[in-house]
Amino acid sequence: MSQLWIKDGLFVTMNEQAEVIQGHMVVEDGVIVYLDKQTPPATLLHSNVEKVNGHHLVFMPGLINTHGHTPMSLLRGYSDDQNLQVWLEQKMWPMEAKYTEQDTHNGAAISQVEMLLSGTTTFVDMYDRMEIVAALTEQTGMRGVLTRGVIGLCSPAEQKQKLDDAIQFAVTWNGKADGRITTMLAPHAPYTCPPDYIAQFVEAAVKYQLPLHTHMSESRAEVEQNIKQYGTRPVEHLDALGFFSVPSLLAHAVHLTDEEIALLAAKDVAISHNVISNLKLASGVARLPELLQAGVRVSLGTDGPASNNNLNLFEEIRLAALLHKGTTYDPTVIPATEALKLGTYYGARSLRMEDSIGSLQVGKQADFIALNIDQPHYYPLTDITSHLVYTANGHDVQHVWVAGKQLVKDRQCLTLDVEKIKYEAQASFERLIEN
Amino acid sequence: MSQLWIKDGLFVTMNEQAEVIQGHMVVEDGVIVYLDKQTPPATLLHSNVEKVNGHHLVFMPGLINTHGHTPMSLLRGYSDDQNLQVWLEQKMWPMEAKYTEQDTHNGAAISQVEMLLSGTTTFVDMYDRMEIVAALTEQTGMRGVLTRGVIGLCSPAEQKQKLDDAIQFAVTWNGKADGRITTMLAPHAPYTCPPDYIAQFVEAAVKYQLPLHTHMSESRAEVEQNIKQYGTRPVEHLDALGFFSVPSLLAHAVHLTDEEIALLAAKDVAISHNVISNLKLASGVARLPELLQAGVRVSLGTDGPASNNNLNLFEEIRLAALLHKGTTYDPTVIPATEALKLGTYYGARSLRMEDSIGSLQVGKQADFIALNIDQPHYYPLTDITSHLVYTANGHDVQHVWVAGKQLVKDRQCLTLDVEKIKYEAQASFERLIEN
Repeated sequence: MSQLWIKDGLFVTMNEQAEVIQGHMVVEDGVIVYLDKQTPPATLLHSNVEKVNGHHLVFMPGLINTHGHTPMSLLRGYSDDQNLQVWLEQKMWPMEAKYTEQDTHNGAAISQVEMLLSGTTTFVDMYDRMEIVAALTEQTGMRGVLTRGVIGLCSPAEQKQKLDDAIQFAVTWNGKADGRITTMLAPHAPYTCPPDYIAQFVEAAVKYQLPLHTHMSESRAEVEQNIKQYGTRPVEHLDALGFFSVPSLLAHAVHLTDEEIALLAAKDVAISHNVISNLKLASGVARLPELLQAGVRVSLGTDGPASNNNLNLFEEIRLAALLHKGTTYDPTVIPATEALKLGTYYGARSLRMEDSIGSLQVGKQADFIALNIDQPHYYPLTDITSHLVYTANGHDVQHVWVAGKQLVKDRQCLTLDVEKIKYEAQASFERLIEN
Repeated sequence: MSQLWIKDGLFVTMNEQAEVIQGHMVVEDGVIVYLDKQTPPATLLHSNVEKVNGHHLVFMPGLINTHGHTPMSLLRGYSDDQNLQVWLEQKMWPMEAKYTEQDTHNGAAISQVEMLLSGTTTFVDMYDRMEIVAALTEQTGMRGVLTRGVIGLCSPAEQKQKLDDAIQFAVTWNGKADGRITTMLAPHAPYTCPPDYIAQFVEAAVKYQLPLHTHMSESRAEVEQNIKQYGTRPVEHLDALGFFSVPSLLAHAVHLTDEEIALLAAKDVAISHNVISNLKLASGVARLPELLQAGVRVSLGTDGPASNNNLNLFEEIRLAALLHKGTTYDPTVIPATEALKLGTYYGARSLRMEDSIGSLQVGKQADFIALNIDQPHYYPLTDITSHLVYTANGHDVQHVWVAGKQLVKDRQCLTLDVEKIKYEAQASFERLIEN
């Protein structure tokens, strides 16, 4: 039975009261068993307990990235400053069509390294060849919510094959890697999947008891096209297809009416707010304050590394706190504690995993990170929650644990060969542009 | 005669064509004397030339932060998520009133450490007790454009004393530290300085041939108050006082009409766009694309560390590229090269120093930084300019030189005692909140 004792650290718990505790945490077999300002009682501690000196470190829940496409890191910086459809259809898709299995692996690997080194412990990933991402996740020790994203603009036979593949992947991998891997079903978007095809995903989600994930209302053009093609806005469209009758997670949801927000709240739909990607692709600014006000399960995602262009969730947290103040002229919206919750506890809520991750609390999985706060930008130490939102940086992450297992120690990845992964990512990109 | 040879590096020059050169740079007595893809000729090199291996590093001009208040780092995180007037008048000013000389020094020192470690080589600073900041700047080796900020809501006698002090400081320090320190005159803002007092600053600026700096049109309330009080918007108000008859730099300028933009362009006025501060204080989003389109000398500033809350100019660069795409729905505005210019060459233009700094070019001052790009978030290396804007981070800065003198080596400050500075910043803050 393995036991870990974090001694004398500063713990930003992100529990309901967002308590900050100067004290001690004990982890046993991957689960938090003690967290208090007092030294743990001797009776709790084993003789072989591993000790970590918490001095100059702040401990917080690992970050939760609720939307992304990790293999796309190979295309980071390949095509910037374009509009969404040009970028996607003329730049991304042709390059992605050339991806080999090795490329998928190489892109996913460099992304997992980057996420770990910037404090993300749980990530949602939507792509194809997901068995490669799943096998990698099993090996790296991250917590992954994985789904094959399916574009349905093809023949019925091909549609069926893709849906079968998506179900096969989801059923095979759900709960694997000691429960670190869970799965979803994901029709790519209402504009890339015909209604009857989306209905088949809903049916399969019910049958296999899997959540649904999709892109929705990312751009104004897409909403207008939905109205033109189907006579309804995307929320009503998906609702009519039964999409919200199962636990579902929508990426983006930038363009929403008051009525749509009310419906999403009533149906308990989760949303991944992709702050930076929405700005970079000029999609717009999502209505985050209203979504939170309505009680929607909203959280943060980086989107793919080609539309961001990094996977540093601390930047999404900071920008979620900053952006909406500026665009609403209200400096009190999304205060620091709320922004930090968006990247941690609310992420867990979006994934319906709030009982097991998202905060440092006894009984929860020991998914946590330690930041080195003995750096100039943290001085003076006035308010640690403010500092984690308004001055911290993913590069301050010193150690990372998932389910009690240390994955990063002193900024070195313990489960990944980073030199090899960097070399292979570069080689993949060079091969992709040559062909 | 000291000589430095950067061998086999990647140089992002930010010259007019924004050339990127894989090659060599030679610096002699603080000035760039050679930059080319070819190895420098043997005749150029001295026997005692210092060599730096450029492998895995990217070299670029040092960043230029055109608006800030460095001693305010002591109040970083002390009061977030408030509106501008409450934050300023109820939180900042009472604490600042308690500042001792030692506090001013301690705040400025931790700020200079933070700026250097995130790649800023030139900074504008507006505060009081500026002789302390100037002496510090002389010692640290940074390039500073310094000015005593004067609030004129006081008796005529006090006004005169403050103006005399400001002139005295500016005249004494202008050109000091081998020209690294230059100075300006700075009435704080139209809403904190009566018109006749601003006119006295203009008169002094003409007499002593000094540029002017002020805050202007940061919030909507301030613009409305100006109209109510003086019958004009701030641009017309300052223009009528002759403010734009001398080289002037305006911080913020968030709320501008088309006519105001045209006037600022015609009068060749410079603007410091404070992206993050304007969001955090809910001031709004400046019209950056229009300002650039009109040919205004616009650049980037962090503002004080209490309204940001860091001094990492790479974040302003990235956000300048991202924000305006999202709010204008145009993904082509502020492309990566333009964003990087805002933090470098355009910064120099805002300070009328574009002949000596802001780009890597033969004949210019050797103010440059080296970033370690052998990190996961830079892979694959598709487009270095894109990476410097959309994925880079101030913490990637490995080395910093100003006027050819190395100030940071392997992330260690060579001219500052960082441990002492951190300790003293913390001690200052604790003293300030106790009293």
